[in-house]
Amino acid sequence: MEKKEEEIKLKSPIRCIVKLGGAAITCKNDFEKINEDDLITVSSQLREAMIMSKSFSPGPVLEMDWSKRPGISETLSRVDDFAGQQVLHYHNFVVIHGAGSFGHFQASKSGVHKGGLNQPLVKAGFVATRISVTSLNLEIVRALAREGIPSVAMSPFSCGWSTRQRNIVSADVSNVVEALDSGFVPVLHGDAVLDESLGCTILSGDVIISHLAAHLRPQFVVFLTDVSGVYDRPPSEPNAILLREIAVREDGSWSVVKPTFEGTKQVEISVASHDTTGGMVTKISEAALIAKLGIDVYIVKAATKHSLTALSGKLREEIPEDWLGTIIRYVS
Amino acid sequence: MEKKEEEIKLKSPIRCIVKLGGAAITCKNDFEKINEDDLITVSSQLREAMIMSKSFSPGPVLEMDWSKRPGISETLSRVDDFAGQQVLHYHNFVVIHGAGSFGHFQASKSGVHKGGLNQPLVKAGFVATRISVTSLNLEIVRALAREGIPSVAMSPFSCGWSTRQRNIVSADVSNVVEALDSGFVPVLHGDAVLDESLGCTILSGDVIISHLAAHLRPQFVVFLTDVSGVYDRPPSEPNAILLREIAVREDGSWSVVKPTFEGTKQVEISVASHDTTGGMVTKISEAALIAKLGIDVYIVKAATKHSLTALSGKLREEIPEDWLGTIIRYVS
Repeated sequence: MEKKEEEIKLKSPIRCIVKLGGAAITCKNDFEKINEDDLITVSSQLREAMIMSKSFSPGPVLEMDWSKRPGISETLSRVDDFAGQQVLHYHNFVVIHGAGSFGHFQASKSGVHKGGLNQPLVKAGFVATRISVTSLNLEIVRALAREGIPSVAMSPFSCGWSTRQRNIVSADVSNVVEALDSGFVPVLHGDAVLDESLGCTILSGDVIISHLAAHLRPQFVVFLTDVSGVYDRPPSEPNAILLREIAVREDGSWSVVKPTFEGTKQVEISVASHDTTGGMVTKISEAALIAKLGIDVYIVKAATKHSLTALSGKLREEIPEDWLGTIIRYVS
Repeated sequence: MEKKEEEIKLKSPIRCIVKLGGAAITCKNDFEKINEDDLITVSSQLREAMIMSKSFSPGPVLEMDWSKRPGISETLSRVDDFAGQQVLHYHNFVVIHGAGSFGHFQASKSGVHKGGLNQPLVKAGFVATRISVTSLNLEIVRALAREGIPSVAMSPFSCGWSTRQRNIVSADVSNVVEALDSGFVPVLHGDAVLDESLGCTILSGDVIISHLAAHLRPQFVVFLTDVSGVYDRPPSEPNAILLREIAVREDGSWSVVKPTFEGTKQVEISVASHDTTGGMVTKISEAALIAKLGIDVYIVKAATKHSLTALSGKLREEIPEDWLGTIIRYVS
């Protein structure tokens, strides 16, 4: 197993870092449109997975978004629901989301990922990208808060995270740790950030997950996406085979251990992807880096019974025969 | 003049830190409603004050909010406006805004400012307050970006700012400096933050201004509010007199130097105020702290010709007879 990086002391260990894939929570062909139904289901599953004691009835959902909502006049009375309520204990979770149909257009049209802040278009694109991704972030924080999850927005740019040649050089996780230690669920996202050599770039949610996993050592990592996992070919093609289990070795190389293929068939990898930072090749490489730390990674379709199973942590004990998804884990 | 705190090296000096008062940019008696008209005027005045060369025609406003907007289908084509555009040079500005009718209800109902995160109501109130104030922050960033101002949201909680007994203990301004050095306009706001002894509290926009002024040494500070300045009594009362100039002395005490009052009349201070952190007494004390650093403070009604005069920096040279507002400055 890889040498541990400087480890952060948390009051309680982190149970899970979960990535809400941009393609899963937004409508990918509809500019800046959230997939409301799936986001509600995902939030509800997260709540269920986060509550510690399964035997204890958690009571009613205590909504933590008390803002005005179109068509609803009753938000102000939500405060009264808290009278006499007990403190619930939650597993420590961190949520990171992608951009999907938010931010992608602004970033690619202006070339923010290539840098060059002295160009008016790039600078404007930086501003426009951040407006778009932070507006998505706000809606995700709201959706989680409405499920009673104490979610707090933590934008990487605001946190002072920056890169050099697109590699993270400054990403102090102490703010994230303090939020966790105070009982909150930090919600981060892929963001436009400053880059020491390029001026600016895009820091993808997958790179953020990898960084946080190395420093926070969660028990497991879940990628919620819009297909069932990693396939041997584009999942839209007939006969595409879902790769159930991928083993990562000490040297970072990996191979499919389930299902077993005849001969030495080359596995072609594809998952519908919707980001400016490389799609599935990035995802699998980042997942392998996480797995190398001894942390199991589950890639699963969002808002399904399979995603609830993954989020609950049950896969660490036993993988049900009918579970659909991809497990990426370290083998010594 | 007060001993300088550890000073930060900026590429170019900061021209101005401006506070958009909550009462000026929101409709104070209307829950979570922005004062759209005034916000547009304020944004336009800020753009005018920020552009460096007055002789150079700045050309069309290049909008930097490329998000979807209700009723407007043309946002995507904004990108084309940038073709062939020159880089404009801006004075360094930092914007901080209050909460007004955002966040106030959530914070006061739950008692976030008193701390106690182990109480479900306080914890929920922290989440709800942040949702409300960050949604206002997003709209202000958007309004500025639509005026071509390269605005970037920087939420104090996300920046890792925290307090002990409500006093700032951790508020690293290096993120703000890096954003400024890269040519952006950081937009901060009053926020719910972690407090080392109380668990949590509210960090007001006025305290943030004071902290930033001490570290960034702007040439001047402007408070945009919903009345013309500081009065000798509630401005709604008949015969209320606008205090034109307040002098701050070495020991922090202050006195009204203009207009002159007969005898030793005690000046009663009042400005319509709408925050959980103390209203005008806080504002005047914070303004005096800033003035003690040798930085002129102008308190002026937002979206008037007087606010444009204050933002432009002209008051540093000469105060027009017909200028309406309050100047707070250090006298040795």
